[in-house]
Amino acid sequence: MPVTSDPRPIGVFDSGIGGLTTVRELFRVLPHESVLYFGDTARLPWGNKSKETVTRFSLEIASFLERQNVKCIVVACNTASSHALDTLRARFRVPIIDVIEPAARAAVAASPRGLIGVVGTLATVGSGAYPNAIARLAPGANVISRACPLLVPLVEEGWLDHAVTRAVAEEYLAELRNAGLESLILGCTHYPLLAPLLSRLMGPGVTLIDSGAEAARATAHLLAERGQLASTAAGAKAPVHHFFLSDEPRRRSFATIAQAFLGRPLPHVTVVDQTDLPWFERPHRQPTLSGGDTL
Amino acid sequence: MPVTSDPRPIGVFDSGIGGLTTVRELFRVLPHESVLYFGDTARLPWGNKSKETVTRFSLEIASFLERQNVKCIVVACNTASSHALDTLRARFRVPIIDVIEPAARAAVAASPRGLIGVVGTLATVGSGAYPNAIARLAPGANVISRACPLLVPLVEEGWLDHAVTRAVAEEYLAELRNAGLESLILGCTHYPLLAPLLSRLMGPGVTLIDSGAEAARATAHLLAERGQLASTAAGAKAPVHHFFLSDEPRRRSFATIAQAFLGRPLPHVTVVDQTDLPWFERPHRQPTLSGGDTL
Repeated sequence: MPVTSDPRPIGVFDSGIGGLTTVRELFRVLPHESVLYFGDTARLPWGNKSKETVTRFSLEIASFLERQNVKCIVVACNTASSHALDTLRARFRVPIIDVIEPAARAAVAASPRGLIGVVGTLATVGSGAYPNAIARLAPGANVISRACPLLVPLVEEGWLDHAVTRAVAEEYLAELRNAGLESLILGCTHYPLLAPLLSRLMGPGVTLIDSGAEAARATAHLLAERGQLASTAAGAKAPVHHFFLSDEPRRRSFATIAQAFLGRPLPHVTVVDQTDLPWFERPHRQPTLSGGDTL
Repeated sequence: MPVTSDPRPIGVFDSGIGGLTTVRELFRVLPHESVLYFGDTARLPWGNKSKETVTRFSLEIASFLERQNVKCIVVACNTASSHALDTLRARFRVPIIDVIEPAARAAVAASPRGLIGVVGTLATVGSGAYPNAIARLAPGANVISRACPLLVPLVEEGWLDHAVTRAVAEEYLAELRNAGLESLILGCTHYPLLAPLLSRLMGPGVTLIDSGAEAARATAHLLAERGQLASTAAGAKAPVHHFFLSDEPRRRSFATIAQAFLGRPLPHVTVVDQTDLPWFERPHRQPTLSGGDTL
């Protein structure tokens, strides 16, 4: 295979800023790569929205990234990976890396007896994406899943080691803690921030799998295989990163949370109005008022 | 004043389904009125989003309601009332009823010494809308506000009387409980479902003010004043209600939560794709990639 290089940025998107955990890992494993990140902060969270809506949002953002000439797109959001992956791959020519398959692969590798747990949003768990991916890799594996809707708001409140967070996690994990698991997939970008707490609850015998970090490693592997890594030659340009959000962060704690995800202060952010995103399937129909209810 | 009537529906909107608490009260005080409800379930919650974004969403939805020929618009969302009210009133000719002013009025009436507490989203509390409205009515009042971001997800999880919810509320209300308040404004559509718990915590001396219910009563007053109530004559048509959401509900618990808000099962819902909403300020600009960060 010819040794080539590709200076274009890696595109990464997420419903919000949780995908910065993937960017942190990209910075670590691919320090010469430029990253172009989009977080849909105007419409987050996606974890309890429908497949149709999550797919439409994902298509809009992937199209935005494609127009910025990215060389691949990392779907850093577990919910989007669960719901929109097939549609994204059918619509775009750039390679699409998801978080599900790499995390499933790591969990299988860490679970010789195939005892794997999954925690995630309602959408991710409801989709069955993880059990399906694991079954393709290890047909005999035994997967137990649990949706944990309150963990994201608790992380965003900054209650990473709060008594309330421990009580919520204990309630959500009750069944998983008694299942003799070998690994637990953290199937949501926010959960790595709760890794110390979750690790204590699950015990030392359970390997926690960080889906975002696995996706970053899968990206490195894919780009190397395709000869599309950025040049590491002495004269090569330094990587340049861009961060786009669809809503101006307004929480005072935003910078703190972003730094916790990214592992360093978040640099300058460009706000992209959602109405500037490309549109898909916009038939301009006006809903009709047929029927109605008299209660 | 001539006695007239107006058969057109009352328009009500909210970021999601919490505004159904206002609809429940509208059904109670105005049983002859038709209601047309819009909940922006594709983009909820709004409580930690920027003024610009909340205003844009509100304009889109109010425009949708106006095209459905409503006779007035009730902004059932505290966040939207806090951020978008002036813009809405400047843009639309139909009367706009908010939740802030009616609740502030009720709190002042219930607080002879002017000791009033406010709980709400980050956006509502950060806007200062309640203290400002109260100051206009009772310049000497003493208002203490507290944002309670976790209460909405706890209600949506259905943990209305859960030990975790009590612990969270105790932490949020600690200062308010020691302030000798006469009333506490529930400045978010979801909080009335926590009224029993909040009432126990605050004690019998504190009157809880339900902002959605106050807005419904203000609507009844306004329509009566303008001669715009629906006819109550024997031959008048029965009221017909329409419920629109921007995302198909996917939580299994949706019907339960909706019923808790509305006080009866939610009837048929029409899903309106967000891309079918009218648009405001859509300049089709493409964000430029000037600069960037090298970290």
